[in-house]
Amino acid sequence: MRESEIIDLFLRHLKRQGDLPLGDDAGALRFGDKWLVATNDMLVRKTDVPDVMTPEQAGFKAVTMNVSDVAAMGAEPVGFLFSLGVPPGLDADYMEGIARGIGEALNFYGIPVLSADTNEADDLIIDGIALGVTERLLTRSGARPGDLVCVTGDLGRALAGLLVWKHDIEVSEKTKKALYDKFLEPRARVSEGVSLSKVASSAIDISDGLAKELHLIAKMSGVGIEIRPESIPIRDEVAEVAEILGLSPLEIALASGEEFELVFTVSPELVDAMDFKFSVMGQVMEGNGVYLASDEERRPLPRLGWEHLGDQKIYNR
Amino acid sequence: MRESEIIDLFLRHLKRQGDLPLGDDAGALRFGDKWLVATNDMLVRKTDVPDVMTPEQAGFKAVTMNVSDVAAMGAEPVGFLFSLGVPPGLDADYMEGIARGIGEALNFYGIPVLSADTNEADDLIIDGIALGVTERLLTRSGARPGDLVCVTGDLGRALAGLLVWKHDIEVSEKTKKALYDKFLEPRARVSEGVSLSKVASSAIDISDGLAKELHLIAKMSGVGIEIRPESIPIRDEVAEVAEILGLSPLEIALASGEEFELVFTVSPELVDAMDFKFSVMGQVMEGNGVYLASDEERRPLPRLGWEHLGDQKIYNR
Repeated sequence: MRESEIIDLFLRHLKRQGDLPLGDDAGALRFGDKWLVATNDMLVRKTDVPDVMTPEQAGFKAVTMNVSDVAAMGAEPVGFLFSLGVPPGLDADYMEGIARGIGEALNFYGIPVLSADTNEADDLIIDGIALGVTERLLTRSGARPGDLVCVTGDLGRALAGLLVWKHDIEVSEKTKKALYDKFLEPRARVSEGVSLSKVASSAIDISDGLAKELHLIAKMSGVGIEIRPESIPIRDEVAEVAEILGLSPLEIALASGEEFELVFTVSPELVDAMDFKFSVMGQVMEGNGVYLASDEERRPLPRLGWEHLGDQKIYNR
Repeated sequence: MRESEIIDLFLRHLKRQGDLPLGDDAGALRFGDKWLVATNDMLVRKTDVPDVMTPEQAGFKAVTMNVSDVAAMGAEPVGFLFSLGVPPGLDADYMEGIARGIGEALNFYGIPVLSADTNEADDLIIDGIALGVTERLLTRSGARPGDLVCVTGDLGRALAGLLVWKHDIEVSEKTKKALYDKFLEPRARVSEGVSLSKVASSAIDISDGLAKELHLIAKMSGVGIEIRPESIPIRDEVAEVAEILGLSPLEIALASGEEFELVFTVSPELVDAMDFKFSVMGQVMEGNGVYLASDEERRPLPRLGWEHLGDQKIYNR
């Protein structure tokens, strides 16, 4: 069964949803004058953990990917839970690395573990769950014409790092480190998400690549989006790898998943009030669809995923 | 690695815990004047779902086992989340049965799904997460000398049903139905948990068998417990199976896991205020340990699990 078939099948049978319909980064429930945000994301070693990733990095990532979804809702993370599936013969040192990585991540994000469960399974599996709290919820559906479209950090290093590893590309140690930092040790934008909860009109975290996330915001908000490609923040190390592979840096930046940067929309009057670094990439328009616009041309932005770059799927994004 | 080794390893690395230390049925966080309760429990087809169980029953059970933990904390369940691991070749009808079962359970318990995630995995895995809310938390550590020790429902049918299935024991359809109802379609004691939150001094749900749960309450509360064996509620169908297998009904009742009944302690003055059916099985004493006491003798209650009944482990409890 394809993932989309499974999702359709469940949507048919699950009529009861929370105070926010399914389809956002996380679910949400009203809790007095606040929102409780809850999300879960399963990491399967075989498909989600490339060999080059240490168990510490994998454990950390299991926390990051959930905390990032909470941050994308504008919520402050308040707790983490996890269930482990452990193959009978798993190396104890590897397991300890996972534990250490989860522990480091909880310290880094300053959140407690509330509950944990271990089970025997064929794969090593870490199902992480994060809870968060916010007074104002950021969804994917709040973008309004006239808003600016912005992003935290820079884009493309996660995929460029994956490509360097997969194709064994020779680059300088400095370049490799810059790319592997993002590929293997991405961090969720927690304080940015909390700041955004006060001002942004919509937000999403980059799990599946900028192109796909922009299409989601446009579709769920019922608006069009115009991006100026030269305004997408891309570091030189990404361009270096792109050149070696005969790709454009832009393609890599658009397709790169698991960046965990926040894409958000905000009214131009509110943009000066924001107290963290970000890039303005474009704006929200009446209409629908996502476009790349320069002075010369305006062309639709394809729903690029990194599988479109001619790479086999090594792990889920 | 053994489960206890994995747990020790994680406890060493996870220093940050919630507002209630790990080790109860669920974790908990203060949320204004209420407690938010959160729990997770993973169901792995190979070890947790006997062949005789339909996918609808398995889906329902994935919800029940989590809701039961929330109920044991005295909390009202308010939301459910789940992550699926789906083997590539899984039959679509089986998957739909799982979806239907989860949907039926959410209707039955009246709770919404907040978030869901699907992934490819080697086993079919359902990791369920339940959230709940209560003004007063029931833990395993609140039992006080003089309290009565009580239980909802009756005990032993889950294990007796498993034994009938496993050993292909011939019993009447009526007996089989009574046992299979509990073995395959147990229900969490939600309204009882909510009522108990106002009066009980401690509570736990029966996941691993009455004997083990009583030992946990005694140990975590720092008290002794005395049970009158004749006061343990056991139905005739359990006695019928016990006789065929040369076991005592008491052994089956003590060892039967996944009953999802609530064991609780309550002060004798408060016991009349309770508005649901339950049995008083014994009382809490100064000291430690758990004892079976009759007029003639007082003997320690072994930490019986159903594996002690000479059965191989077919699925985790």
